[in-house]
Amino acid sequence: MKNLIKESVSSLEGYTPGEQPGSKNVIKLNTNENPYPPVPALSDGLSNFDISELRKYPNPVSSKLRNEIADYYNLEVDNVFIGNGSDEILALCTRAFVEDNGSVGYFEPSYSLYPVLTAIRDVEQRPVSLNENFTWVMPENFEASLFYLANPNAPTGMCFDKNQIIEFCGSFPGVVLIDEAYADFASYNCIDLLSKFDNVVICRTFSKSFSLAGIRLGYMLGNEKLISAMIAIKDSYNVNALTQELGYLAFKNIDYMKANVEKIKATRAVLSQELSQLGFEVCKSETNFVWTKSLKVPAKKLYEQLKAKGIFVRYFNDDLIKDYLRITVGTPEEIQRFLEELRVLLKT
Amino acid sequence: MKNLIKESVSSLEGYTPGEQPGSKNVIKLNTNENPYPPVPALSDGLSNFDISELRKYPNPVSSKLRNEIADYYNLEVDNVFIGNGSDEILALCTRAFVEDNGSVGYFEPSYSLYPVLTAIRDVEQRPVSLNENFTWVMPENFEASLFYLANPNAPTGMCFDKNQIIEFCGSFPGVVLIDEAYADFASYNCIDLLSKFDNVVICRTFSKSFSLAGIRLGYMLGNEKLISAMIAIKDSYNVNALTQELGYLAFKNIDYMKANVEKIKATRAVLSQELSQLGFEVCKSETNFVWTKSLKVPAKKLYEQLKAKGIFVRYFNDDLIKDYLRITVGTPEEIQRFLEELRVLLKT
Repeated sequence: MKNLIKESVSSLEGYTPGEQPGSKNVIKLNTNENPYPPVPALSDGLSNFDISELRKYPNPVSSKLRNEIADYYNLEVDNVFIGNGSDEILALCTRAFVEDNGSVGYFEPSYSLYPVLTAIRDVEQRPVSLNENFTWVMPENFEASLFYLANPNAPTGMCFDKNQIIEFCGSFPGVVLIDEAYADFASYNCIDLLSKFDNVVICRTFSKSFSLAGIRLGYMLGNEKLISAMIAIKDSYNVNALTQELGYLAFKNIDYMKANVEKIKATRAVLSQELSQLGFEVCKSETNFVWTKSLKVPAKKLYEQLKAKGIFVRYFNDDLIKDYLRITVGTPEEIQRFLEELRVLLKT
Repeated sequence: MKNLIKESVSSLEGYTPGEQPGSKNVIKLNTNENPYPPVPALSDGLSNFDISELRKYPNPVSSKLRNEIADYYNLEVDNVFIGNGSDEILALCTRAFVEDNGSVGYFEPSYSLYPVLTAIRDVEQRPVSLNENFTWVMPENFEASLFYLANPNAPTGMCFDKNQIIEFCGSFPGVVLIDEAYADFASYNCIDLLSKFDNVVICRTFSKSFSLAGIRLGYMLGNEKLISAMIAIKDSYNVNALTQELGYLAFKNIDYMKANVEKIKATRAVLSQELSQLGFEVCKSETNFVWTKSLKVPAKKLYEQLKAKGIFVRYFNDDLIKDYLRITVGTPEEIQRFLEELRVLLKT
């Protein structure tokens, strides 16, 4: 049997998504989902959707949404790629921009999917360790075919220095994918780099700020030749008709998303401050989660104790970051409940 | 710029999907879409769907639907893979079962996506030409890592001899993917081969018989080790929440699909008979389309003349099959209209 399966696939260790507990009676602060529902217009969008349209193939390049996004950013349609979640986009990049003998770079720690995608593509992994402040010093003459640069970074929640990003993009010989999954929650983004660098692409998702992880929708902005390469290798109809329509409605109502982002930023400020007062080291979050170092009680123990109370936060079983917890910014009520339980646990 | 893009990708010739005319005022018999809407229960499914659920990630392996399909076929859940359309499944197979120095076999003519997927995977293409009756004689000692075997075949619409398929599966050293996209319209299928051969997987789609091309949903049945390899390399959340739910509802209402299939088979019989009487050579269709050779007027000319009348059929600009047209079985009214126009064109 084994010889029917590609050797590198047989030995893969897959990506571990955050737990999705079956019970609804829990507080989920572990997968960076948005605590607020998506824009109400989507309800009407679903009710009014003519199901007889579903018998037909969807638009292969999500034209309506693609046009809308291009207009919003003052780009041409050819500078926009629409994907089945940014997951699909990140994976396609390994196949569009990396030769079989090529390599993929990324920071450690960063989004844990990057090494998995590189292993799936079966090319050389070139991780670059961040220093203890989670900033970087690039090794001399560092090269790769593709570099995944999450900004803000996950799981740290911090933005890198923009000038350092600009310098890196200018000197790096391959494609730099700036993963802006959390950029709507941040103090700046890198959209302006698109006009400066042909080798820079930017990836965005509807999963976080738009509260639409369930529909699987992401987009990439970049040079038309890079976009064209992505289109050439994607599945013929990668994004279904309903996702195209709901994504379009959500993007048309972008102010609703922005209002939710402001609410989350306010709750984030409370959570960060309270954690500091409880003696945690708290990184400056530019995302919808807080990355915090537990100085008194081991992070793993807190994670387990919270889980026993029905509160899920994210703990990474990884030496580099084993003292940290990643806590998604929920509703104010969820965060209060979390803080109450945490205070009890810290006293016992 | 070019050296940022993988060389094999730069030189790709993509898949050409059938035309999707913008106007609604046409008769579309060119993309094998089902002329009937999907089961009405889907309307309620959409209206009742709680959009706040969309803020969460979907189930990563489409568990509810996967269980339902496993039960239906008396298989274990581990024998079922759910994909973002069978497109995704066909593409994943090239990455799960083919080494970088491996190869992919398929018939010619067959589904024109197979060589495209092989080119995207950048491995050796091993096409096997069908003879003029569209049946096969396999070359001596034929080998490949993966073989795409569409049965019924497209664009011919015919089933191969089942004993020949069984013999091939028993002797072929790689994975045989039997693409049963059209099996619901056929006189037999190959599900029973799953219990005989570890190297056989079967791919099905919701696009044709279930009238759901728009939601992107397909599934694969096979040995749990092969399924497990597919899961290891798929995008983390490959199928969105709405597609999972609508697919589940459609599968639960499978009798509705079967009734539509019977209607289409009745119309197919009329279409086949009328074409024969008009002097066309008509292959015995086991699908929702008819493959027919134009003996009097060049196929390309008919295709263009019909298009000018607002009737789209599929013509392949390929020497091997340039005398044929592929005509999707529409509603009885659409087929009557098509036949009327055809009679006029043949007289002029």
